[in-house]
Amino acid sequence: MTLITSQFLDNLPVAVPPWSGYPRYNFVGGNIDPETMAIAGLSEKARSAVKKHGPAMAYYNMGNGPLGFELLRDRIADRMNQQRGMDITGDHVLITSGSAQGLDLLNLSFVTEGDTVILEQHTYAFGAIQLKKLGARILPAPLDAKGIEMNGLEKTLQDLASQGIRPKFIYTIPTVQNPTGSILPLERRHRLIELARQYRVPIIEDECYSELMFHPNRPPSIYALAPDVTIYVGSFSKTLSPAMRLGFVVAPPEIVSQIAALKSDSGTSSMAQAIVAEFLVDGYDDHVHQVSSALLHKLDIITAALNREFGTSIDVHRPTGGLFVWLTFPEGFDTRRLTAPAGKEGIIFNVGPDWSIDADAGMRNMRLCFAHLPDKVLEDGVAALAQVCFLEAGFPKRGANSERT
Amino acid sequence: MTLITSQFLDNLPVAVPPWSGYPRYNFVGGNIDPETMAIAGLSEKARSAVKKHGPAMAYYNMGNGPLGFELLRDRIADRMNQQRGMDITGDHVLITSGSAQGLDLLNLSFVTEGDTVILEQHTYAFGAIQLKKLGARILPAPLDAKGIEMNGLEKTLQDLASQGIRPKFIYTIPTVQNPTGSILPLERRHRLIELARQYRVPIIEDECYSELMFHPNRPPSIYALAPDVTIYVGSFSKTLSPAMRLGFVVAPPEIVSQIAALKSDSGTSSMAQAIVAEFLVDGYDDHVHQVSSALLHKLDIITAALNREFGTSIDVHRPTGGLFVWLTFPEGFDTRRLTAPAGKEGIIFNVGPDWSIDADAGMRNMRLCFAHLPDKVLEDGVAALAQVCFLEAGFPKRGANSERT
Repeated sequence: MTLITSQFLDNLPVAVPPWSGYPRYNFVGGNIDPETMAIAGLSEKARSAVKKHGPAMAYYNMGNGPLGFELLRDRIADRMNQQRGMDITGDHVLITSGSAQGLDLLNLSFVTEGDTVILEQHTYAFGAIQLKKLGARILPAPLDAKGIEMNGLEKTLQDLASQGIRPKFIYTIPTVQNPTGSILPLERRHRLIELARQYRVPIIEDECYSELMFHPNRPPSIYALAPDVTIYVGSFSKTLSPAMRLGFVVAPPEIVSQIAALKSDSGTSSMAQAIVAEFLVDGYDDHVHQVSSALLHKLDIITAALNREFGTSIDVHRPTGGLFVWLTFPEGFDTRRLTAPAGKEGIIFNVGPDWSIDADAGMRNMRLCFAHLPDKVLEDGVAALAQVCFLEAGFPKRGANSERT
Repeated sequence: MTLITSQFLDNLPVAVPPWSGYPRYNFVGGNIDPETMAIAGLSEKARSAVKKHGPAMAYYNMGNGPLGFELLRDRIADRMNQQRGMDITGDHVLITSGSAQGLDLLNLSFVTEGDTVILEQHTYAFGAIQLKKLGARILPAPLDAKGIEMNGLEKTLQDLASQGIRPKFIYTIPTVQNPTGSILPLERRHRLIELARQYRVPIIEDECYSELMFHPNRPPSIYALAPDVTIYVGSFSKTLSPAMRLGFVVAPPEIVSQIAALKSDSGTSSMAQAIVAEFLVDGYDDHVHQVSSALLHKLDIITAALNREFGTSIDVHRPTGGLFVWLTFPEGFDTRRLTAPAGKEGIIFNVGPDWSIDADAGMRNMRLCFAHLPDKVLEDGVAALAQVCFLEAGFPKRGANSERT
């Protein structure tokens, strides 16, 4: 222990290990495809945006106050109105450093020790981790192939009401659910809104994958249907770059300005804000279509590989969009058994319990990100994973038309 | 109260007010000059950096792990070695979203309720505010025209040691002190290091203004002299853009990786990191010289205006570099008296108590930022401020060679 480290608090998280790069078969996280990055468009907009908005960058927040760059906020509002059925202006938009910061600010605005919140049974891991740190009691909303199962949710709300408990919010990813890939049908959205109004519980709607759909029919966002009960969170991480750290929150102005009061970072990076503001009106639409097509191609590759290598021994839940495929292994199997042996073969993935409110409910699940790997690596990685699974657990017995040994 | 706002915690900070722009004579904050922004260089590097590093932006942290973009970390290390006398590699560098985030992470790593820390009597306001939130007991190190007065600091350390208290750290801005503009001479740096070692108290060295000197002689950084007791914080906010949100922490790798464990933002924006990595080796040096010259010119303008309008009724502390001039009003005067009447005339400034550990010690002080305003606005603003002061407090009686009325 040095003079400096002896003064550190003794409850700090474990230090970050030296970085050694990604393993060969990296199915983890929400990275996107380097091949379909909008490099030509973004690099040209980078030049022109810095030229055009550079003088404003002499000021904190580009001289536009803590909600973020006004031009970007206006253009996000336009896009939300056109694409997601909203009726908002830039005053409804708070720019954040990734949608994760938006969720952080919301958690901090609503939740303190002992508060109850409702999250989908399988959900975005990092939001749930922060809620646990804040001391929240997290209850799961049951999911089926179409998202939240509303009778189950109603029962939970009833039970809580009978104990005098009003949950702080219901957090949902309705459009391309993470990790299950489902899309919540319009009638369920209406039912969710009814329940939210009846039990006076706000909805936090996370749409960070909704631009990347595999078919053209998306119901309108929940915010569009019910701005009185909903706060919306969006992101450019999955369409443009996760490393750019640019997301946004949509809510009525009095709510956005309250959430913004907790944003203590002196603003989100102007470079990303200026560049995306320019790209959003000239290139973004085409880019999103290209990325969605490329993702659908990759989904077909990984699905074929999973079918070829695993056969009927696992269920592959075909997502409606996005970056992930969610797998269900046989009853009683724990996917965490595969983590160590797969790691030795250079294969990493997300195990279901890490993406579930009840670890048991996700025990036999696994999430694979297929967005960023070349086709051949996807195929080889799935084959390698099946082989690890066979050696560890005795299945799948057949793969790629031959018996495993 | 709406369904949503009724669920907010009841101890939230005040919502941010609607943004109405800056007043005419804005002497507040650390904005820089739009006229001397490196727009041509940065816009060209923006294009080339996104082209070159765009594929890496498909990955969180550009595939480089939580310490930040490796190329930028290496180039910051090179610059610190050349310019600040250090002997480090990129492994000593953590990229942060502004130096403010670096200070946040350090405060969170060291300080909990009841801990004692030592800050300079006049200091960066926001760091002190966060320390208060954490429940720290903040003691002032006395300042004179050359920075920390070491006998006074020694006495404080002795007193604390006699009570069995070892402060968590000494936070200092040694090179262009904020707000006083002083520079800590080499012999005092050595004395500070001796005291830090003797009392086993780490030094946090904030050098966010040290690139912007008005004369070529800077002593080496304290970190360069004593990496065993020092953590260094740097920034590109004052040389490139405060809105870019790019800063860094320098410390031995085991310390940097511990601090990084608290960085929960999924990385600092790649756009800024990639662009600055390219500009740092091709354009930054010339740019820093140009900005420093332009700031010296503006300092001469505001100093002449202050002398012309205030005469001998106030003391003007000429800074050794940076963006600010620090004023001392007559004994017993409270600069907060001027805030409201000046506000009515479109003049805003930072009052001394907001930048002081003991509000009383800063009562008759005022900080003016002169970096971002055109010459004529600086002159008119100082004249308007003097007139407000005369009407409110009866001085200065003469200004610009005529009697005030």
